[in-house]
Amino acid sequence: MNLLNFDQNKKLDFIGVGRLCVDLNANEIHRPMEETMTFTKYVGGSPANITIGLSRLNMKSGFIGRIADDQMGRFIKQYLNNNNIDTSNVITDKSGSVTGLAFTEIKSPTDCSILMYRDNVADLKLEPNDVSEEYIKQSKAILISGTALAKSPSREAVFLALQYARKHGVMVFFDVDYRPYTWESEQETAIFYNLAAEKCDVIIGTREEFDMMEKMENYEKSDDWVTAKKWFDFNAKMVVIKHGADGSIAYAKDGKSYTGSVFPAKIVKTFGAGDSYAAGFIYGLMNGWQVNKAMEFGSAAASIVISSHSCSDAMPTYEQISSVIDNHNK
Amino acid sequence: MNLLNFDQNKKLDFIGVGRLCVDLNANEIHRPMEETMTFTKYVGGSPANITIGLSRLNMKSGFIGRIADDQMGRFIKQYLNNNNIDTSNVITDKSGSVTGLAFTEIKSPTDCSILMYRDNVADLKLEPNDVSEEYIKQSKAILISGTALAKSPSREAVFLALQYARKHGVMVFFDVDYRPYTWESEQETAIFYNLAAEKCDVIIGTREEFDMMEKMENYEKSDDWVTAKKWFDFNAKMVVIKHGADGSIAYAKDGKSYTGSVFPAKIVKTFGAGDSYAAGFIYGLMNGWQVNKAMEFGSAAASIVISSHSCSDAMPTYEQISSVIDNHNK
Amino acid sequence: MNLLNFDQNKKLDFIGVGRLCVDLNANEIHRPMEETMTFTKYVGGSPANITIGLSRLNMKSGFIGRIADDQMGRFIKQYLNNNNIDTSNVITDKSGSVTGLAFTEIKSPTDCSILMYRDNVADLKLEPNDVSEEYIKQSKAILISGTALAKSPSREAVFLALQYARKHGVMVFFDVDYRPYTWESEQETAIFYNLAAEKCDVIIGTREEFDMMEKMENYEKSDDWVTAKKWFDFNAKMVVIKHGADGSIAYAKDGKSYTGSVFPAKIVKTFGAGDSYAAGFIYGLMNGWQVNKAMEFGSAAASIVISSHSCSDAMPTYEQISSVIDNHNK
Amino acid sequence: MNLLNFDQNKKLDFIGVGRLCVDLNANEIHRPMEETMTFTKYVGGSPANITIGLSRLNMKSGFIGRIADDQMGRFIKQYLNNNNIDTSNVITDKSGSVTGLAFTEIKSPTDCSILMYRDNVADLKLEPNDVSEEYIKQSKAILISGTALAKSPSREAVFLALQYARKHGVMVFFDVDYRPYTWESEQETAIFYNLAAEKCDVIIGTREEFDMMEKMENYEKSDDWVTAKKWFDFNAKMVVIKHGADGSIAYAKDGKSYTGSVFPAKIVKTFGAGDSYAAGFIYGLMNGWQVNKAMEFGSAAASIVISSHSCSDAMPTYEQISSVIDNHNK
Repeated sequence: MNLLNFDQNKKLDFIGVGRLCVDLNANEIHRPMEETMTFTKYVGGSPANITIGLSRLNMKSGFIGRIADDQMGRFIKQYLNNNNIDTSNVITDKSGSVTGLAFTEIKSPTDCSILMYRDNVADLKLEPNDVSEEYIKQSKAILISGTALAKSPSREAVFLALQYARKHGVMVFFDVDYRPYTWESEQETAIFYNLAAEKCDVIIGTREEFDMMEKMENYEKSDDWVTAKKWFDFNAKMVVIKHGADGSIAYAKDGKSYTGSVFPAKIVKTFGAGDSYAAGFIYGLMNGWQVNKAMEFGSAAASIVISSHSCSDAMPTYEQISSVIDNHNK
Repeated sequence: MNLLNFDQNKKLDFIGVGRLCVDLNANEIHRPMEETMTFTKYVGGSPANITIGLSRLNMKSGFIGRIADDQMGRFIKQYLNNNNIDTSNVITDKSGSVTGLAFTEIKSPTDCSILMYRDNVADLKLEPNDVSEEYIKQSKAILISGTALAKSPSREAVFLALQYARKHGVMVFFDVDYRPYTWESEQETAIFYNLAAEKCDVIIGTREEFDMMEKMENYEKSDDWVTAKKWFDFNAKMVVIKHGADGSIAYAKDGKSYTGSVFPAKIVKTFGAGDSYAAGFIYGLMNGWQVNKAMEFGSAAASIVISSHSCSDAMPTYEQISSVIDNHNK
Repeated sequence: MNLLNFDQNKKLDFIGVGRLCVDLNANEIHRPMEETMTFTKYVGGSPANITIGLSRLNMKSGFIGRIADDQMGRFIKQYLNNNNIDTSNVITDKSGSVTGLAFTEIKSPTDCSILMYRDNVADLKLEPNDVSEEYIKQSKAILISGTALAKSPSREAVFLALQYARKHGVMVFFDVDYRPYTWESEQETAIFYNLAAEKCDVIIGTREEFDMMEKMENYEKSDDWVTAKKWFDFNAKMVVIKHGADGSIAYAKDGKSYTGSVFPAKIVKTFGAGDSYAAGFIYGLMNGWQVNKAMEFGSAAASIVISSHSCSDAMPTYEQISSVIDNHNK
Repeated sequence: MNLLNFDQNKKLDFIGVGRLCVDLNANEIHRPMEETMTFTKYVGGSPANITIGLSRLNMKSGFIGRIADDQMGRFIKQYLNNNNIDTSNVITDKSGSVTGLAFTEIKSPTDCSILMYRDNVADLKLEPNDVSEEYIKQSKAILISGTALAKSPSREAVFLALQYARKHGVMVFFDVDYRPYTWESEQETAIFYNLAAEKCDVIIGTREEFDMMEKMENYEKSDDWVTAKKWFDFNAKMVVIKHGADGSIAYAKDGKSYTGSVFPAKIVKTFGAGDSYAAGFIYGLMNGWQVNKAMEFGSAAASIVISSHSCSDAMPTYEQISSVIDNHNK
């Protein structure tokens, strides 16, 4: 796969940008949250999870984000440090913000929902001034998550990170990660998602997320190749479109496409499937693997996380993922 | 005690007004919250706790408040219903608000703190339209809590409740319950606390809270009788001033004062002491007890709650409180 | 008239509190504003106009308010100074606020309307800290205007001014001056108007304004005596209710009432009628005149202002008003 | 000049996008505004002025913008209609917004300043939904103004207009028009200005405005060619940089540059110089003139407007501009 060139002279492999949150996962599951009495605390947030996943895979990782000046914020920073993630660019917000929360409700393995606390959250207070050109320049790749585009000043901080990444040949992964809350309208979302996607090298999202980004195009029906080609005209080399149970397809700028498979799992909950997939897949791409092999690695990683209680804390090692693949291929 | 006359023809004994929240109490205690991994969920909020306390004591109770349209809000309503509290005036807010949260941190029995989530909370969305003159008219007493004055439209709703209560001879308890967050300044707080206190029959607060209310008086030093007399010139018949470890003093309009005692307890945490005291004390006053006896009943109730993990769920019955008093007096 | 006792030992006669604005009055009149090409600038705002009116009548006057840090703000301060109004308590707001504007449209002498600019205005930035107890204490009377209650922190500043006035025996005139913009709802207005009116000595408003204040009383129909008596139970000694073309009636605490008359005038516009009436009427009351005579003086003042192009700048002197009365009584 | 190709099959020549305001120009000039007593009303706002200028030059023009639902808004619409500008896409905002105001202060011909009213203004309420793909598609060119990027939802509406323009081969003029108010920070401004400039064909601004856009580049000193080339890598064909008294330079993608001259004028005020220059210059470019000739036409237009009392109303006709040029070249 020579579409993506990672500059091997960089000090860091990967920097996550954006959301650092706390998940509060129901301990008594298979019931509505009203009847759940206790919750377990984990670090959460899509870019946090992916970065933790890559660090577990021994990628030299860092993070650019803001945390609240409270116990939850300090917990997040400690957890990142304990997971060998560089937190020199994780800034403590002093404005009185809080840590974003996600209470998970697991009614059944397939009926899961989240109750979010997203008012006045620290992660959306990330400012352009927080984004260091020097820091980004040192990394092979960064990952931005769509949620960080939802509000100013975090939105501007992300656009600045994109500008620095392009300027210094840092590869950009864009995890679309669309969540309706905090956005004012679908149009606002589509407009800023498009402006960001123009500057990214690999774009990963569900078919529904790409449909949302194409809202203003007025297409009669969605078409994966049309979607992918739009971004190839800008900077993208690969566009990964997830079709739910039908699996993912990676479209490459050279005209090839690759279909991913799903690993069987004893599902506890569906949360974290996308983040663990992304971590495994990005690991593969960054190591120069064939796209097929990277997708398989991501799927195996996902099968492990959805069988566990948490997202972040369950991120698997290389050995764990390999073992799942080996067992499956026997 | 004939300073306070409760109209015995009313259908309800007591209505709490204001804050309905969720407490998330640390399970692994005696450590900073960063190291607490699981939390247990309880109904919380000062007026909620007091109302639950009075309902446990078999007072016919109701509540006027707003809850979020989510799992936390539904949990609160169910809990109130299960505790025989009338929720016909508990309104589900549809504006996208969330349930206020209080994560408790118990580093030691005496070093406790709270991490609050108070942005965009349902309880402060209470509107004047939510306050039914008919409903208030039916009750012997209502209790308002200072927190509900912190923001519009809840602030206006409380002033309307006060107006209806005065119009219909409903006794008003005012739990000062000052918490700096959500207020813009101490002056704003003092001004609205004073406007509310003018219309109340029994005012309960700490010495520090009354000092804050007297901020604009520029007294050289605080004096309990000066404090109490100011309110007797309006509608108050009793002013209870809490002096921390030195105990509480109840000042009555007839010039008498009563000093409360503290019951020994094996303290788990200090949270809930004030709310359980208020519940027991109000119970005594509403049953025509001597002030001394009512204060003793409140103190005994408090000794039970501070020995327990929760505030609301630990609210004791008449038998439990009596048993503590009997044991102590042996 | 011994219902109102003004302390003759005070240094100042009168302090206006609240709104200082700029009127931009159409020069080409008797047409819609779309066709007006030039506007003339005057100081405006109800309490400003009344204070200017009283100063023209040689009452020692001052003002408590905030002005914008711009050319319009400086113009206002200069104009007040030029009119012998003490501006030591007129504070320049540094928050980036603007001066409230009122563009007047005069389609015909009786079809007048106003286009208001009330976003981010300096007058509503008045803070409790701006209100000096020492300053209020020195005055025989203050006037508050309902508009200043419309938003925090001006609202709190007014309640503090009321508290100081009551504490020091300063008479309080309340010009209801209800203007729907800037208020969130009629209920919010009614609640704060009631809280303020409880602390005032003379309340002046239209029948419609009093109806709005009684919104939560659910009266079947409005009754002037019911309205007036409600306030006599608090601190009011006089309640003036304006019935439009039917004239005003002043209700006194001693059970008497006085009906005002209207002076004939060649009307240019109706703006300023109420403010000039108030200035003349208050002047009479403060000089110990019979209520009837004070009302006549107010009406004569109004007849002068509505015949002129401006409100503030047209405020008449004692001689001008007397001359109108003399001519009329010939 | 074949760098810019205007599609001659389009129905409209030109569409202005964004700000529609009212200027209130001091009538008594050469003094501080405090001493100005009357103001004359004109339509204002940079894109409005330029569009009026082009319409005076007989270009078929239209406008996309929002106006307040009041007398000022209706005045603007009537004025545009009277100037043969299509207002089918000028939308009346119903949210309670006001018309932006600019009071001009002319202390001397060279010491001019503006007092702006920009809170809650109708023009910044422009929404993506207001932007019609069909309408933009019909025009040879659109002009966007930087001010419209200052706030959501106007910001998103502009990005959508840019997307439609690029999609349909409509040439885009970008008038940088930086005004610090309404922006949160210089960084916010720089980030969104850059995102917009990437999509424009002709960018016109002062050297200071381009410096602000390069704030995050950390150049040691500014260099016109570096500035211009950056945009040629995106979509720009021409970058016009104004150096104040030193005149303007137009940099073209083909490597050529053109220096403009300044016409002598009896200056009343400096306002409107840039807008009238832009109108004349764009007129020239759209008619396929040599860049030099277009610049001369712009300068001559500017010399007329700065000799007049207004900006919009003084926009000259072809004959007036030609006459100035002829007189000058005699």
